[in-house]
Amino acid sequence: MALVLDRAELTEFVEQAFAQVKGDFAIEAMDEELLVLRLKVDERHLRPGGTVSGPNIFALADVGIYFAILARIGRVPLAVTTNASIDFMRKPKSGVDLLAHIRILKLGRVLAVGDALIYSEGDDRPVARASMTYSIPPGATEPQG
Amino acid sequence: MALVLDRAELTEFVEQAFAQVKGDFAIEAMDEELLVLRLKVDERHLRPGGTVSGPNIFALADVGIYFAILARIGRVPLAVTTNASIDFMRKPKSGVDLLAHIRILKLGRVLAVGDALIYSEGDDRPVARASMTYSIPPGATEPQG
Amino acid sequence: MALVLDRAELTEFVEQAFAQVKGDFAIEAMDEELLVLRLKVDERHLRPGGTVSGPNIFALADVGIYFAILARIGRVPLAVTTNASIDFMRKPKSGVDLLAHIRILKLGRVLAVGDALIYSEGDDRPVARASMTYSIPPGATEPQG
Amino acid sequence: MALVLDRAELTEFVEQAFAQVKGDFAIEAMDEELLVLRLKVDERHLRPGGTVSGPNIFALADVGIYFAILARIGRVPLAVTTNASIDFMRKPKSGVDLLAHIRILKLGRVLAVGDALIYSEGDDRPVARASMTYSIPPGATEPQG
Repeated sequence: MALVLDRAELTEFVEQAFAQVKGDFAIEAMDEELLVLRLKVDERHLRPGGTVSGPNIFALADVGIYFAILARIGRVPLAVTTNASIDFMRKPKSGVDLLAHIRILKLGRVLAVGDALIYSEGDDRPVARASMTYSIPPGATEPQG
Repeated sequence: MALVLDRAELTEFVEQAFAQVKGDFAIEAMDEELLVLRLKVDERHLRPGGTVSGPNIFALADVGIYFAILARIGRVPLAVTTNASIDFMRKPKSGVDLLAHIRILKLGRVLAVGDALIYSEGDDRPVARASMTYSIPPGATEPQG
Repeated sequence: MALVLDRAELTEFVEQAFAQVKGDFAIEAMDEELLVLRLKVDERHLRPGGTVSGPNIFALADVGIYFAILARIGRVPLAVTTNASIDFMRKPKSGVDLLAHIRILKLGRVLAVGDALIYSEGDDRPVARASMTYSIPPGATEPQG
Repeated sequence: MALVLDRAELTEFVEQAFAQVKGDFAIEAMDEELLVLRLKVDERHLRPGGTVSGPNIFALADVGIYFAILARIGRVPLAVTTNASIDFMRKPKSGVDLLAHIRILKLGRVLAVGDALIYSEGDDRPVARASMTYSIPPGATEPQG
Protein backbone atom coordinates (compact mmCIF):
# COMPACT_ATOMS: atom_id res chain seq x y z
CA MET A 1 0.00 0.00 0.00
CA ALA A 2 1.84 3.08 -1.24
CA LEU A 3 2.13 6.06 1.09
CA VAL A 4 0.56 9.35 -0.03
CA LEU A 5 1.69 11.50 2.90
CA ASP A 6 5.15 11.84 4.41
CA ARG A 7 6.02 12.17 8.10
CA ALA A 8 6.02 15.95 8.09
CA GLU A 9 2.66 16.15 6.31
CA LEU A 10 1.10 13.59 8.67
CA THR A 11 2.39 15.29 11.77
CA GLU A 12 1.22 18.70 10.64
CA PHE A 13 -2.24 17.39 9.73
CA VAL A 14 -2.78 15.48 12.96
CA GLU A 15 -1.50 18.27 15.19
CA GLN A 16 -3.88 20.68 13.50
CA ALA A 17 -6.79 18.24 13.73
CA PHE A 18 -5.99 17.13 17.29
CA ALA A 19 -4.43 20.10 19.00
CA GLN A 20 -4.70 18.39 22.38
CA VAL A 21 -2.15 15.71 21.55
CA LYS A 22 0.19 18.25 19.96
CA GLY A 23 3.72 17.45 21.08
CA ASP A 24 2.83 14.12 22.70
CA PHE A 25 3.75 11.95 19.73
CA ALA A 26 6.59 11.75 17.21
CA ILE A 27 6.85 9.52 14.14
CA GLU A 28 10.20 7.76 14.51
CA ALA A 29 10.07 5.82 11.26
CA MET A 30 7.55 5.13 8.51
CA ASP A 31 7.55 3.00 5.40
CA GLU A 32 5.02 0.78 3.64
CA GLU A 33 5.60 -2.00 6.16
CA LEU A 34 5.95 -0.34 9.52
CA LEU A 35 5.26 2.93 11.32
CA VAL A 36 7.00 3.57 14.65
CA LEU A 37 5.32 6.17 16.86
CA ARG A 38 6.90 7.53 20.03
CA LEU A 39 4.92 8.67 23.05
CA LYS A 40 7.05 11.34 24.67
CA VAL A 41 6.25 10.29 28.21
CA ASP A 42 5.50 13.18 30.52
CA GLU A 43 4.30 13.49 34.10
CA ARG A 44 0.70 13.81 32.89
CA HIS A 45 0.83 10.36 31.22
CA LEU A 46 1.77 8.52 34.41
CA ARG A 47 -0.21 6.69 37.02
CA PRO A 48 1.05 6.29 40.59
CA GLY A 49 4.26 4.27 40.50
CA GLY A 50 5.50 6.21 37.52
CA THR A 51 4.23 3.95 34.71
CA VAL A 52 2.19 5.10 31.72
CA SER A 53 -1.53 4.65 32.31
CA GLY A 54 -3.80 2.38 30.29
CA PRO A 55 -5.69 5.22 28.59
CA ASN A 56 -2.38 6.70 27.39
CA ILE A 57 -1.28 3.32 26.01
CA PHE A 58 -4.67 3.12 24.27
CA ALA A 59 -4.13 6.61 22.84
CA LEU A 60 -0.66 5.72 21.55
CA ALA A 61 -2.00 2.70 19.63
CA ASP A 62 -5.05 4.62 18.42
CA VAL A 63 -3.07 7.60 17.12
CA GLY A 64 -0.39 5.37 15.61
CA ILE A 65 -2.84 3.26 13.63
CA TYR A 66 -4.70 6.42 12.58
CA PHE A 67 -1.41 7.90 11.34
CA ALA A 68 -0.63 4.75 9.35
CA ILE A 69 -4.08 4.76 7.73
CA LEU A 70 -3.87 8.47 6.83
CA ALA A 71 -0.42 7.87 5.34
CA ARG A 72 -2.21 5.58 2.85
CA ILE A 73 -5.50 7.42 2.22
CA GLY A 74 -4.50 11.05 2.74
CA ARG A 75 -6.05 13.77 4.85
CA VAL A 76 -9.35 12.14 5.87
CA PRO A 77 -10.36 13.56 9.23
CA LEU A 78 -13.54 11.51 9.48
CA ALA A 79 -12.04 8.07 9.92
CA VAL A 80 -13.27 6.87 13.34
CA THR A 81 -12.27 3.97 15.57
CA THR A 82 -15.10 1.42 15.73
CA ASN A 83 -13.39 -1.38 17.67
CA ALA A 84 -10.31 -1.75 19.82
CA SER A 85 -8.84 -4.80 21.51
CA ILE A 86 -5.85 -4.46 23.82
CA ASP A 87 -3.77 -6.90 25.84
CA PHE A 88 -1.75 -5.28 28.60
CA MET A 89 1.13 -7.69 29.13
CA ARG A 90 3.86 -5.97 31.12
CA LYS A 91 4.28 -2.87 33.24
CA PRO A 92 5.91 -0.10 31.20
CA LYS A 93 9.37 0.83 32.40
CA SER A 94 9.41 4.10 34.29
CA GLY A 95 11.50 6.96 32.97
CA VAL A 96 11.52 5.92 29.32
CA ASP A 97 9.30 6.68 26.33
CA LEU A 98 6.96 4.14 24.75
CA LEU A 99 7.33 3.10 21.10
CA ALA A 100 4.42 1.66 19.12
CA HIS A 101 5.20 -0.53 16.11
CA ILE A 102 2.23 -0.21 13.78
CA ARG A 103 1.22 -2.39 10.84
CA ILE A 104 -1.84 -2.01 8.61
CA LEU A 105 -3.41 -5.43 8.01
CA LYS A 106 -6.35 -4.36 5.89
CA LEU A 107 -7.32 -1.21 4.03
CA GLY A 108 -10.75 -1.74 2.55
CA ARG A 109 -13.42 0.48 1.13
CA VAL A 110 -15.19 1.03 4.46
CA LEU A 111 -12.98 -0.62 7.10
CA ALA A 112 -9.29 -0.53 7.90
CA VAL A 113 -7.57 -2.75 10.47
CA GLY A 114 -4.24 -2.02 12.11
CA ASP A 115 -2.10 -3.76 14.68
CA ALA A 116 0.23 -2.24 17.29
CA LEU A 117 2.96 -3.71 19.45
CA ILE A 118 4.01 -1.30 22.18
CA TYR A 119 7.44 -1.36 23.83
CA SER A 120 9.26 0.53 26.54
CA GLU A 121 12.24 2.10 24.76
CA GLY A 122 15.23 -0.20 25.10
CA ASP A 123 13.23 -3.34 25.97
CA ASP A 124 12.22 -5.91 23.33
CA ARG A 125 9.45 -7.49 25.42
CA PRO A 126 6.12 -5.90 24.44
CA VAL A 127 4.25 -3.87 27.07
CA ALA A 128 0.97 -4.19 25.17
CA ARG A 129 -0.64 -5.41 21.97
CA ALA A 130 -3.53 -3.62 20.34
CA SER A 131 -5.62 -4.02 17.23
CA MET A 132 -8.10 -1.45 16.06
CA THR A 133 -10.68 -1.12 13.32
CA TYR A 134 -11.46 2.20 11.68
CA SER A 135 -14.52 3.10 9.66
CA ILE A 136 -13.57 5.12 6.60
CA PRO A 137 -15.95 7.62 4.99
CA PRO A 138 -17.32 6.42 1.63
CA GLY A 139 -15.15 7.40 -1.31
CA ALA A 140 -12.06 8.12 0.79
CA THR A 141 -10.22 5.06 -0.46
CA GLU A 142 -10.24 2.27 -3.00
CA PRO A 143 -10.20 -1.27 -1.65
CA GLN A 144 -6.74 -2.79 -1.54
CA GLY A 145 -8.08 -6.34 -1.47
CA MET B 1 -21.46 -10.96 45.22
CA ALA B 2 -21.81 -8.92 48.39
CA LEU B 3 -20.28 -5.44 48.51
CA VAL B 4 -17.60 -4.78 51.10
CA LEU B 5 -17.06 -1.07 50.39
CA ASP B 6 -19.64 1.69 50.05
CA ARG B 7 -19.60 4.57 47.57
CA ALA B 8 -17.82 6.98 49.90
CA GLU B 9 -15.13 4.44 50.81
CA LEU B 10 -14.56 3.54 47.16
CA THR B 11 -14.34 7.14 46.04
CA GLU B 12 -11.94 8.05 48.80
CA PHE B 13 -9.71 5.06 48.09
CA VAL B 14 -9.56 5.57 44.36
CA GLU B 15 -8.99 9.32 44.59
CA GLN B 16 -6.09 8.69 46.96
CA ALA B 17 -4.66 5.93 44.78
CA PHE B 18 -5.24 7.79 41.49
CA ALA B 19 -4.91 11.48 42.28
CA GLN B 20 -4.87 12.32 38.57
CA VAL B 21 -8.48 11.32 38.00
CA LYS B 22 -9.63 13.04 41.21
CA GLY B 23 -12.85 14.87 40.45
CA ASP B 24 -13.35 13.32 37.01
CA PHE B 25 -15.68 10.55 38.12
CA ALA B 26 -18.66 10.19 40.42
CA ILE B 27 -20.47 7.00 41.45
CA GLU B 28 -24.13 7.65 40.66
CA ALA B 29 -25.49 4.37 41.95
CA MET B 30 -24.11 1.07 43.18
CA ASP B 31 -25.64 -2.20 44.27
CA GLU B 32 -24.79 -5.88 43.80
CA GLU B 33 -26.14 -5.83 40.24
CA LEU B 34 -25.08 -2.54 38.75
CA LEU B 35 -22.66 0.34 39.27
CA VAL B 36 -23.27 3.59 37.41
CA LEU B 37 -20.23 5.83 37.03
CA ARG B 38 -20.40 9.38 35.70
CA LEU B 39 -17.64 11.04 33.74
CA LYS B 40 -17.96 14.74 34.52
CA VAL B 41 -17.14 15.87 31.01
CA ASP B 42 -14.75 18.79 30.90
CA GLU B 43 -12.92 20.62 28.12
CA ARG B 44 -9.86 18.42 28.61
CA HIS B 45 -11.86 15.27 27.78
CA LEU B 46 -12.98 16.49 24.39
CA ARG B 47 -11.68 15.99 20.89
CA PRO B 48 -12.31 18.53 18.14
CA GLY B 49 -16.04 18.70 17.51
CA GLY B 50 -16.75 18.65 21.22
CA THR B 51 -17.18 14.92 21.76
CA VAL B 52 -15.41 12.86 24.41
CA SER B 53 -12.26 11.21 23.03
CA GLY B 54 -11.71 7.46 22.78
CA PRO B 55 -9.05 7.36 25.50
CA ASN B 56 -11.44 9.08 27.91
CA ILE B 57 -14.21 6.60 27.09
CA PHE B 58 -11.67 3.83 27.69
CA ALA B 59 -10.76 5.40 31.03
CA LEU B 60 -14.41 5.65 32.09
CA ALA B 61 -14.99 1.94 31.48
CA ASP B 62 -11.66 0.99 33.05
CA VAL B 63 -12.22 3.01 36.23
CA GLY B 64 -15.85 1.90 36.48
CA ILE B 65 -15.06 -1.81 36.28
CA TYR B 66 -12.17 -1.30 38.70
CA PHE B 67 -14.55 0.39 41.15
CA ALA B 68 -17.04 -2.47 40.86
CA ILE B 69 -14.32 -5.06 41.52
CA LEU B 70 -12.95 -3.17 44.52
CA ALA B 71 -16.48 -2.86 45.90
CA ARG B 72 -16.43 -6.67 46.09
CA ILE B 73 -12.83 -7.43 47.12
CA GLY B 74 -11.92 -4.34 49.13
CA ARG B 75 -8.94 -2.03 48.92
CA VAL B 76 -6.64 -3.97 46.58
CA PRO B 77 -4.51 -1.45 44.71
CA LEU B 78 -2.66 -4.08 42.70
CA ALA B 79 -5.49 -5.31 40.49
CA VAL B 80 -4.37 -4.54 36.92
CA THR B 81 -6.20 -4.54 33.59
CA THR B 82 -4.90 -7.37 31.40
CA ASN B 83 -7.34 -7.17 28.47
CA ALA B 84 -9.81 -4.64 27.13
CA SER B 85 -12.21 -4.86 24.21
CA ILE B 86 -14.25 -1.83 23.16
CA ASP B 87 -16.83 -1.17 20.48
CA PHE B 88 -17.36 2.50 19.71
CA MET B 89 -20.89 2.64 18.34
CA ARG B 90 -22.10 6.22 18.33
CA LYS B 91 -20.67 9.68 18.67
CA PRO B 92 -21.14 10.94 22.25
CA LYS B 93 -23.50 13.91 22.51
CA SER B 94 -21.69 17.16 23.10
CA GLY B 95 -22.39 19.13 26.22
CA VAL B 96 -23.54 16.23 28.40
CA ASP B 97 -21.78 13.85 30.77
CA LEU B 98 -21.20 10.16 30.02
CA LEU B 99 -22.65 7.43 32.23
CA ALA B 100 -21.14 3.93 32.36
CA HIS B 101 -23.37 1.06 33.44
CA ILE B 102 -21.04 -1.57 34.92
CA ARG B 103 -21.69 -5.23 35.66
CA ILE B 104 -19.26 -7.79 37.05
CA LEU B 105 -19.58 -11.06 35.14
CA LYS B 106 -16.91 -13.06 36.91
CA LEU B 107 -14.93 -12.65 40.11
CA GLY B 108 -12.46 -15.50 40.32
CA ARG B 109 -9.35 -16.21 42.30
CA VAL B 110 -6.98 -14.61 39.79
CA LEU B 111 -9.20 -13.01 37.13
CA ALA B 112 -12.24 -10.74 37.22
CA VAL B 113 -14.30 -9.77 34.16
CA GLY B 114 -16.56 -6.75 33.94
CA ASP B 115 -18.77 -5.27 31.27
CA ALA B 116 -19.64 -1.61 30.61
CA LEU B 117 -22.31 0.05 28.53
CA ILE B 118 -21.63 3.76 28.11
CA TYR B 119 -24.34 6.33 27.41
CA SER B 120 -24.57 10.04 26.82
CA GLU B 121 -26.73 11.33 29.66
CA GLY B 122 -30.33 11.46 28.51
CA ASP B 123 -29.91 9.07 25.56
CA ASP B 124 -30.70 5.35 25.82
CA ARG B 125 -28.65 4.35 22.75
CA PRO B 126 -25.19 3.20 23.91
CA VAL B 127 -22.18 5.23 22.81
CA ALA B 128 -19.81 2.35 23.49
CA ARG B 129 -19.54 -1.15 24.93
CA ALA B 130 -16.48 -2.36 26.77
CA SER B 131 -15.40 -5.52 28.54
CA MET B 132 -12.24 -5.74 30.59
CA THR B 133 -10.33 -8.42 32.44
CA TYR B 134 -8.40 -7.68 35.61
CA SER B 135 -5.69 -9.78 37.18
CA ILE B 136 -6.11 -9.94 40.94
CA PRO B 137 -3.18 -10.45 43.31
CA PRO B 138 -3.14 -13.93 44.89
CA GLY B 139 -5.08 -14.10 48.13
CA ALA B 140 -7.05 -10.91 47.53
CA THR B 141 -10.29 -12.77 46.93
CA GLU B 142 -12.01 -16.11 47.18
CA PRO B 143 -13.44 -17.51 43.96
CA GLN B 144 -17.12 -16.81 43.55
CA GLY B 145 -17.59 -19.67 41.08
CA MET C 1 -35.79 -1.83 16.27
CA ALA C 2 -38.87 -3.58 14.92
CA LEU C 3 -38.59 -7.21 13.84
CA VAL C 4 -39.32 -8.04 10.20
CA LEU C 5 -38.92 -11.84 10.44
CA ASP C 6 -40.45 -14.24 12.94
CA ARG C 7 -38.78 -17.27 14.54
CA ALA C 8 -40.02 -19.73 11.93
CA GLU C 9 -38.92 -17.53 9.02
CA LEU C 10 -35.50 -16.96 10.57
CA THR C 11 -34.94 -20.63 11.30
CA GLU C 12 -35.98 -21.68 7.82
CA PHE C 13 -33.74 -19.07 6.19
CA VAL C 14 -30.66 -19.86 8.26
CA GLU C 15 -31.04 -23.62 7.91
CA GLN C 16 -31.26 -23.24 4.14
CA ALA C 17 -28.31 -20.85 4.03
CA PHE C 18 -26.21 -22.84 6.52
CA ALA C 19 -27.16 -26.48 6.06
CA GLN C 20 -24.23 -27.57 8.21
CA VAL C 21 -25.66 -26.14 11.41
CA LYS C 22 -29.14 -27.46 10.63
CA GLY C 23 -30.61 -28.86 13.82
CA ASP C 24 -27.85 -27.51 16.08
CA PHE C 25 -29.67 -24.38 17.15
CA ALA C 26 -33.18 -23.46 18.26
CA ILE C 27 -34.61 -19.99 18.92
CA GLU C 28 -36.09 -20.19 22.42
CA ALA C 29 -37.46 -16.68 22.56
CA MET C 30 -37.25 -13.51 20.50
CA ASP C 31 -38.55 -9.99 20.88
CA GLU C 32 -37.21 -6.50 20.20
CA GLU C 33 -35.07 -6.61 23.35
CA LEU C 34 -33.68 -10.13 23.55
CA LEU C 35 -33.15 -13.26 21.47
CA VAL C 36 -32.41 -16.52 23.28
CA LEU C 37 -30.68 -19.17 21.15
CA ARG C 38 -30.20 -22.76 22.32
CA LEU C 39 -27.26 -24.90 21.29
CA LYS C 40 -28.57 -28.46 21.37
CA VAL C 41 -25.40 -29.92 22.78
CA ASP C 42 -24.34 -33.14 21.11
CA GLU C 43 -21.31 -35.40 21.34
CA ARG C 44 -19.71 -33.60 18.40
CA HIS C 45 -19.73 -30.28 20.28
CA LEU C 46 -17.74 -31.58 23.22
CA ARG C 47 -14.08 -31.54 24.10
CA PRO C 48 -12.53 -34.13 26.40
CA GLY C 49 -14.13 -33.83 29.84
CA GLY C 50 -17.55 -33.43 28.27
CA THR C 51 -17.73 -29.64 28.04
CA VAL C 52 -18.63 -27.66 24.92
CA SER C 53 -15.53 -26.56 23.02
CA GLY C 54 -14.49 -22.94 22.45
CA PRO C 55 -15.23 -23.00 18.70
CA ASN C 56 -18.78 -24.20 19.41
CA ILE C 57 -19.31 -21.44 21.97
CA PHE C 58 -18.01 -18.99 19.35
CA ALA C 59 -20.45 -20.45 16.81
CA LEU C 60 -23.39 -20.13 19.22
CA ALA C 61 -22.71 -16.43 19.77
CA ASP C 62 -22.00 -15.82 16.08
CA VAL C 63 -25.19 -17.52 14.87
CA GLY C 64 -27.27 -15.92 17.62
CA ILE C 65 -26.17 -12.38 16.82
CA TYR C 66 -26.59 -13.09 13.10
CA PHE C 67 -30.17 -14.28 13.78
CA ALA C 68 -30.94 -11.13 15.78
CA ILE C 69 -29.61 -8.90 12.99
CA LEU C 70 -31.55 -10.74 10.28
CA ALA C 71 -34.68 -10.47 12.40
CA ARG C 72 -34.30 -6.68 11.97
CA ILE C 73 -33.02 -6.36 8.40
CA GLY C 74 -34.58 -9.40 6.74
CA ARG C 75 -33.05 -12.10 4.56
CA VAL C 76 -29.59 -10.66 3.90
CA PRO C 77 -27.20 -13.55 3.40
CA LEU C 78 -24.17 -11.34 2.85
CA ALA C 79 -23.79 -9.91 6.33
CA VAL C 80 -20.34 -11.06 7.52
CA THR C 81 -18.64 -11.05 10.92
CA THR C 82 -15.75 -8.58 10.91
CA ASN C 83 -14.75 -8.66 14.58
CA ALA C 84 -15.37 -10.92 17.54
CA SER C 85 -14.30 -10.59 21.16
CA ILE C 86 -14.99 -13.39 23.64
CA ASP C 87 -14.32 -13.88 27.34
CA PHE C 88 -14.48 -17.49 28.47
CA MET C 89 -15.36 -17.24 32.15
CA ARG C 90 -16.52 -20.61 33.39
CA LYS C 91 -16.47 -24.21 32.27
CA PRO C 92 -19.82 -25.15 30.72
CA LYS C 93 -21.75 -27.73 32.69
CA SER C 94 -21.65 -31.15 31.12
CA GLY C 95 -24.87 -32.78 30.07
CA VAL C 96 -26.89 -29.61 29.55
CA ASP C 97 -27.52 -27.32 26.58
CA LEU C 98 -26.09 -23.82 26.28
CA LEU C 99 -28.34 -20.76 25.99
CA ALA C 100 -27.13 -17.50 24.43
CA HIS C 101 -28.88 -14.27 25.43
CA ILE C 102 -28.44 -11.89 22.50
CA ARG C 103 -28.91 -8.14 22.35
CA ILE C 104 -28.36 -5.84 19.38
CA LEU C 105 -26.53 -2.70 20.52
CA LYS C 106 -26.21 -0.95 17.17
CA LEU C 107 -27.78 -1.40 13.75
CA GLY C 108 -26.20 1.09 11.41
CA ARG C 109 -25.98 1.51 7.69
CA VAL C 110 -22.80 -0.56 7.31
CA LEU C 111 -22.09 -2.04 10.75
CA ALA C 112 -24.16 -3.86 13.34
CA VAL C 113 -22.95 -4.76 16.84
CA GLY C 114 -24.43 -7.46 19.03
CA ASP C 115 -23.69 -8.80 22.47
CA ALA C 116 -24.12 -12.35 23.81
CA LEU C 117 -24.14 -13.77 27.31
CA ILE C 118 -23.90 -17.56 27.26
CA TYR C 119 -25.20 -19.78 30.06
CA SER C 120 -25.35 -23.47 30.85
CA GLU C 121 -29.05 -24.24 31.08
CA GLY C 122 -30.16 -23.96 34.70
CA ASP C 123 -27.18 -21.88 35.87
CA ASP C 124 -27.33 -18.07 36.08
CA ARG C 125 -23.54 -17.57 36.10
CA PRO C 126 -22.40 -16.82 32.54
CA VAL C 127 -20.08 -19.31 30.84
CA ALA C 128 -18.93 -16.74 28.30
CA ARG C 129 -19.48 -13.21 27.01
CA ALA C 130 -19.11 -12.30 23.37
CA SER C 131 -19.53 -9.21 21.26
CA MET C 132 -19.41 -9.26 17.50
CA THR C 133 -19.51 -6.73 14.68
CA TYR C 134 -21.11 -7.50 11.34
CA SER C 135 -20.59 -5.70 8.07
CA ILE C 136 -23.89 -5.21 6.27
CA PRO C 137 -24.10 -4.92 2.48
CA PRO C 138 -24.93 -1.39 1.30
CA GLY C 139 -28.63 -0.72 1.02
CA ALA C 140 -29.66 -3.63 3.23
CA THR C 141 -30.72 -1.41 6.08
CA GLU C 142 -31.42 2.14 7.11
CA PRO C 143 -29.40 3.48 10.00
CA GLN C 144 -31.24 3.27 13.31
CA GLY C 145 -29.04 5.93 14.89
CA MET D 1 11.65 -18.72 25.36
CA ALA D 2 13.30 -22.10 24.80
CA LEU D 3 11.17 -24.94 23.44
CA VAL D 4 10.77 -28.05 25.57
CA LEU D 5 8.72 -30.13 23.13
CA ASP D 6 9.37 -30.82 19.45
CA ARG D 7 6.80 -31.01 16.65
CA ALA D 8 6.29 -34.76 16.93
CA GLU D 9 5.84 -34.62 20.72
CA LEU D 10 3.39 -31.71 20.47
CA THR D 11 1.33 -33.34 17.74
CA GLU D 12 1.15 -36.64 19.60
CA PHE D 13 0.15 -34.94 22.85
CA VAL D 14 -2.55 -32.75 21.32
CA GLU D 15 -4.02 -35.53 19.18
CA GLN D 16 -4.30 -37.71 22.27
CA ALA D 17 -5.79 -34.89 24.35
CA PHE D 18 -8.10 -33.65 21.58
CA ALA D 19 -9.04 -36.69 19.53
CA GLN D 20 -11.73 -34.70 17.71
CA VAL D 21 -9.27 -32.47 15.89
CA LYS D 22 -6.98 -35.40 15.06
CA GLY D 23 -5.81 -35.01 11.49
CA ASP D 24 -7.18 -31.48 11.05
CA PHE D 25 -3.95 -29.67 11.85
CA ALA D 26 -0.28 -30.02 10.95
CA ILE D 27 2.67 -28.07 12.34
CA GLU D 28 4.48 -26.74 9.28
CA ALA D 29 7.33 -25.06 11.09
CA MET D 30 8.25 -24.22 14.68
CA ASP D 31 11.09 -22.35 16.32
CA GLU D 32 11.43 -19.92 19.23
CA GLU D 33 10.06 -17.07 17.12
CA LEU D 34 7.27 -18.53 15.02
CA LEU D 35 4.98 -21.55 14.79
CA VAL D 36 3.14 -22.17 11.52
CA LEU D 37 0.04 -24.36 11.81
CA ARG D 38 -1.84 -25.69 8.81
CA LEU D 39 -5.57 -26.33 8.76
CA LYS D 40 -6.06 -29.16 6.29
CA VAL D 41 -9.26 -27.75 4.85
CA ASP D 42 -11.94 -30.34 4.36
CA GLU D 43 -15.59 -30.24 3.31
CA ARG D 44 -16.66 -30.16 6.97
CA HIS D 45 -14.78 -26.89 7.57
CA LEU D 46 -16.60 -24.98 4.84
CA ARG D 47 -19.61 -22.72 4.84
CA PRO D 48 -21.75 -22.21 1.76
CA GLY D 49 -19.62 -20.65 -0.97
CA GLY D 50 -16.75 -22.95 -0.13
CA THR D 51 -14.87 -20.77 2.35
CA VAL D 52 -13.71 -21.85 5.79
CA SER D 53 -16.22 -20.87 8.49
CA GLY D 54 -15.54 -18.46 11.33
CA PRO D 55 -15.59 -21.14 14.03
CA ASN D 56 -12.94 -23.11 12.13
CA ILE D 57 -10.75 -20.02 11.78
CA PHE D 58 -11.20 -19.48 15.52
CA ALA D 59 -10.20 -23.10 16.15
CA LEU D 60 -7.08 -22.79 13.99
CA ALA D 61 -5.85 -19.76 15.96
CA ASP D 62 -6.83 -21.33 19.28
CA VAL D 63 -5.06 -24.64 18.62
CA GLY D 64 -2.03 -22.90 17.13
CA ILE D 65 -1.50 -20.63 20.12
CA TYR D 66 -2.11 -23.56 22.46
CA PHE D 67 0.56 -25.55 20.57
CA ALA D 68 3.04 -22.68 20.86
CA ILE D 69 2.44 -22.36 24.60
CA LEU D 70 2.79 -26.09 25.21
CA ALA D 71 6.02 -26.09 23.21
CA ARG D 72 7.37 -23.76 25.92
CA ILE D 73 5.78 -25.16 29.10
CA GLY D 74 5.43 -28.85 28.24
CA ARG D 75 2.46 -31.20 28.50
CA VAL D 76 0.01 -29.07 30.51
CA PRO D 77 -3.49 -30.11 29.52
CA LEU D 78 -5.19 -27.63 31.83
CA ALA D 79 -4.24 -24.40 30.11
CA VAL D 80 -7.56 -22.81 29.08
CA THR D 81 -8.45 -19.93 26.78
CA THR D 82 -9.82 -17.01 28.83
CA ASN D 83 -10.09 -14.34 26.11
CA ALA D 84 -10.07 -14.23 22.35
CA SER D 85 -10.21 -11.29 19.95
CA ILE D 86 -10.48 -11.87 16.21
CA ASP D 87 -10.64 -9.59 13.19
CA PHE D 88 -11.98 -11.26 10.06
CA MET D 89 -10.47 -9.23 7.25
CA ARG D 90 -10.80 -11.16 4.00
CA LYS D 91 -12.71 -14.11 2.66
CA PRO D 92 -10.50 -17.23 2.69
CA LYS D 93 -9.67 -18.55 -0.77
CA SER D 94 -11.63 -21.63 -1.64
CA GLY D 95 -9.77 -24.82 -2.40
CA VAL D 96 -6.63 -24.06 -0.41
CA ASP D 97 -5.53 -24.74 3.17
CA LEU D 98 -5.21 -22.03 5.82
CA LEU D 99 -1.88 -21.30 7.52
CA ALA D 100 -1.70 -19.62 10.93
CA HIS D 101 1.49 -17.77 11.85
CA ILE D 102 1.69 -17.86 15.65
CA ARG D 103 3.82 -15.78 18.00
CA ILE D 104 3.88 -15.90 21.79
CA LEU D 105 3.94 -12.35 23.18
CA LYS D 106 3.91 -13.16 26.88
CA LEU D 107 4.46 -16.27 28.95
CA GLY D 108 3.82 -15.39 32.55
CA ARG D 109 3.18 -17.32 35.71
CA VAL D 110 -0.60 -17.39 35.31
CA LEU D 111 -1.31 -15.88 31.87
CA ALA D 112 0.09 -16.41 28.39
CA VAL D 113 -0.75 -14.26 25.36
CA GLY D 114 -0.34 -15.31 21.75
CA ASP D 115 -1.00 -13.70 18.42
CA ALA D 116 -2.03 -15.34 15.13
CA LEU D 117 -2.06 -14.10 11.55
CA ILE D 118 -4.03 -16.42 9.30
CA TYR D 119 -3.45 -16.72 5.56
CA SER D 120 -4.90 -18.64 2.66
CA GLU D 121 -2.00 -20.71 1.35
CA GLY D 122 -0.29 -18.81 -1.46
CA ASP D 123 -1.70 -15.39 -0.53
CA ASP D 124 0.23 -12.90 1.61
CA ARG D 125 -2.81 -10.81 2.57
CA PRO D 126 -4.07 -12.00 5.96
CA VAL D 127 -7.54 -13.56 6.15
CA ALA D 128 -7.79 -12.96 9.88
CA ARG D 129 -5.91 -11.76 12.94
CA ALA D 130 -6.45 -13.26 16.36
CA SER D 131 -5.01 -12.79 19.81
CA MET D 132 -5.80 -15.08 22.70
CA THR D 133 -5.03 -15.26 26.40
CA TYR D 134 -4.59 -18.55 28.21
CA SER D 135 -4.76 -19.17 31.92
CA ILE D 136 -1.99 -21.51 33.03
CA PRO D 137 -2.33 -23.77 36.08
CA PRO D 138 -0.20 -22.62 39.02
CA GLY D 139 3.29 -24.07 39.00
CA ALA D 140 3.22 -25.05 35.33
CA THR D 141 5.68 -22.35 34.31
CA GLU D 142 8.10 -19.78 35.59
CA PRO D 143 7.49 -16.20 34.54
CA GLN D 144 9.55 -15.18 31.53
CA GLY D 145 9.24 -11.49 32.35
